[in-house]
Amino acid sequence: MKILILGGDGYIGWPTAMKLSAAGHDVTVADNYMRRNIMRDTDCEALFAVPNLHGRAARWKEVSGHTVEVRVGDLNSWDFIDQLFADTMPDTIIHYAEQPSAPYSMLDRRAADLTLRNNLGVTFNTIQAMNAHVPDAHLVKLGTMGEYGTPNIDIEEGWLEVEHKGRKDKFLFPRAAGSLYHTTKVLDTDLLWFYVRVWGLRVTDLMQGPVYGLATDETGDDDQLMSFLNYDEMFGTVLNRFMVQAVAGYPLTVYGKGGQTRGYLHLRDALQCVKLAVENPAGAGELRVLNQFVETFSVNDLAGHVQESGARLGLDVTIKSLPNPRKEMEEHYYNPVHTGLLDLGLKPNPLTAEVMDDMMGLILRYKDQIVKERIFRGVQWKR
Amino acid sequence: MKILILGGDGYIGWPTAMKLSAAGHDVTVADNYMRRNIMRDTDCEALFAVPNLHGRAARWKEVSGHTVEVRVGDLNSWDFIDQLFADTMPDTIIHYAEQPSAPYSMLDRRAADLTLRNNLGVTFNTIQAMNAHVPDAHLVKLGTMGEYGTPNIDIEEGWLEVEHKGRKDKFLFPRAAGSLYHTTKVLDTDLLWFYVRVWGLRVTDLMQGPVYGLATDETGDDDQLMSFLNYDEMFGTVLNRFMVQAVAGYPLTVYGKGGQTRGYLHLRDALQCVKLAVENPAGAGELRVLNQFVETFSVNDLAGHVQESGARLGLDVTIKSLPNPRKEMEEHYYNPVHTGLLDLGLKPNPLTAEVMDDMMGLILRYKDQIVKERIFRGVQWKR
Repeated sequence: MKILILGGDGYIGWPTAMKLSAAGHDVTVADNYMRRNIMRDTDCEALFAVPNLHGRAARWKEVSGHTVEVRVGDLNSWDFIDQLFADTMPDTIIHYAEQPSAPYSMLDRRAADLTLRNNLGVTFNTIQAMNAHVPDAHLVKLGTMGEYGTPNIDIEEGWLEVEHKGRKDKFLFPRAAGSLYHTTKVLDTDLLWFYVRVWGLRVTDLMQGPVYGLATDETGDDDQLMSFLNYDEMFGTVLNRFMVQAVAGYPLTVYGKGGQTRGYLHLRDALQCVKLAVENPAGAGELRVLNQFVETFSVNDLAGHVQESGARLGLDVTIKSLPNPRKEMEEHYYNPVHTGLLDLGLKPNPLTAEVMDDMMGLILRYKDQIVKERIFRGVQWKR
Repeated sequence: MKILILGGDGYIGWPTAMKLSAAGHDVTVADNYMRRNIMRDTDCEALFAVPNLHGRAARWKEVSGHTVEVRVGDLNSWDFIDQLFADTMPDTIIHYAEQPSAPYSMLDRRAADLTLRNNLGVTFNTIQAMNAHVPDAHLVKLGTMGEYGTPNIDIEEGWLEVEHKGRKDKFLFPRAAGSLYHTTKVLDTDLLWFYVRVWGLRVTDLMQGPVYGLATDETGDDDQLMSFLNYDEMFGTVLNRFMVQAVAGYPLTVYGKGGQTRGYLHLRDALQCVKLAVENPAGAGELRVLNQFVETFSVNDLAGHVQESGARLGLDVTIKSLPNPRKEMEEHYYNPVHTGLLDLGLKPNPLTAEVMDDMMGLILRYKDQIVKERIFRGVQWKR
């Protein structure tokens, strides 16, 4: 397949490019380095530096023999995306090209503005570019489990059948997200669902939970092929942050009661899921929603896993509950369905002791590069 | 109250300014004339010309003695809206400042882009300006009944209690709108609901049905105080269009089977509703949703009313069914609740023969100014 990856420089973007090119697909990545720019501007640099996209593609070519085409530009500009689609004419578009940090989206007005206008704008331009150039192509869009929030009923896979006053209909599952970033993904879904209905687009919307881990089949042990390992509050996902905190001897930053429960998955499984979605496309006029995670954990569960792994590796890991800077329920019902990707063939890799210790081992190599000041700054959700 | 009307030059915007200033409120209107510009660019000019906002305010001052402050600028620019809020420090903000045409939003990519970026951008800037300057102010936002679409269950007033697998929760009523314009209002609601939850904003979201009519208590018979009477496909609402078609001797343009049913109201009642919402504010942290219409009609019902009025006035009105350029159900269930505004004190003015004949009489005065070429152009929803 001819696959175009929008946001191909990101935490999942670049590993996806390697995974799909290794599988024999013809892959182009596009990115404007927004994430790298924000990481630099906010001093949220990753644990170790990785090459730019041209460097990554060169290294990957050297190691694997596979070519990944690189295009650098702003997908929120019609001029760029129009030319990109005209040049590549993809069968499949994977859309990761969004400002991905919830705390950054709540930092201040400018950060919120960038998040909303970039995320909605790129989704809109992608829809219009598909319509103009490849109306029958398949869009695989990265959403988030966070779109659903934490409702008091079971979370179904995208849709909910409602019986009301003796009549029935089926609707998008209700959404109520916990940050502006997550809310932009709700808006994306609404926009996609509209154009699926009116234009018959072919769309898979992946409701992904927080991802952890770094090594994949393609990276092996080569850190120049690995993704960003962020351990700051902005771009670090919670388990990655806790592991770096443990290695740095910094008490794990549990927010409030720590009962906040979400569905998690390893980066390897995120790649499996995206590959399955790409290779089993949605139908024309279908908005297929898949809940993309492997296991649910509370924040306290994760802190416990890190503490146990630390003990095995000779680290003394402590936990410190902080006043919650976010606005979220700290104890709640959480029971999301996630059978769609299993039905497509996902083989889950659970968070075993071995997986934990491998990840901790990788981080231990870079222990001296950890900048403790980056770990916590307490971006407030409340005004 | 100090009231700031965003989009104060629009079909409802200007009449609202007169209504609220007549009621003793201190009113400022802001607008960038986007609608006038699009009307000119697409040759969708109104039946008769009306003065610009400065001229309208001068005429209104002359006639009534009341002052309406005028500010011209782009609310999607932070620089302008920030200064506007700092200068006016409103208690109440009425937000009409959106590209309001469904067919225009489906015309082409540029029109869609303008619609999405303007509508979401202004809503976002309004939220941020409230947060920066008047966090306790009340926002009255014009949504649309079109946000709900035409579900197969009763449409409740904004919210739906769901029982699912033995558990319960309450959600925003599911939305599935029929045009990009209507979809931008769905996105607005999602965005407002997020900031209400996180920042405790005070918001009323008015789900308004299509409005008809022109004369209000404030305009009297003075056409220099009246709103735009659009009879083109872009900006004309359906009953206004049918009446002009009847006067022009143009067969009424019923799309498809004509069973499309919506909730309608006269401009006078739209003003009543907004005034009631303004003078009875929502609570802090409340997103109050009110379904704003008086009666439901199918398109065929409306065509029948126009035909009957025409007969009374000596006009021979014919009806012609056209292939539907839109994507919508032409026969469907439609039963929306609308008790909230009645509970606040709305005294509905139904569409009587007298109301019909008065509106037709007004249009007859301008019969010679009707440009038939403006009536229909068939903007296609499908790609």
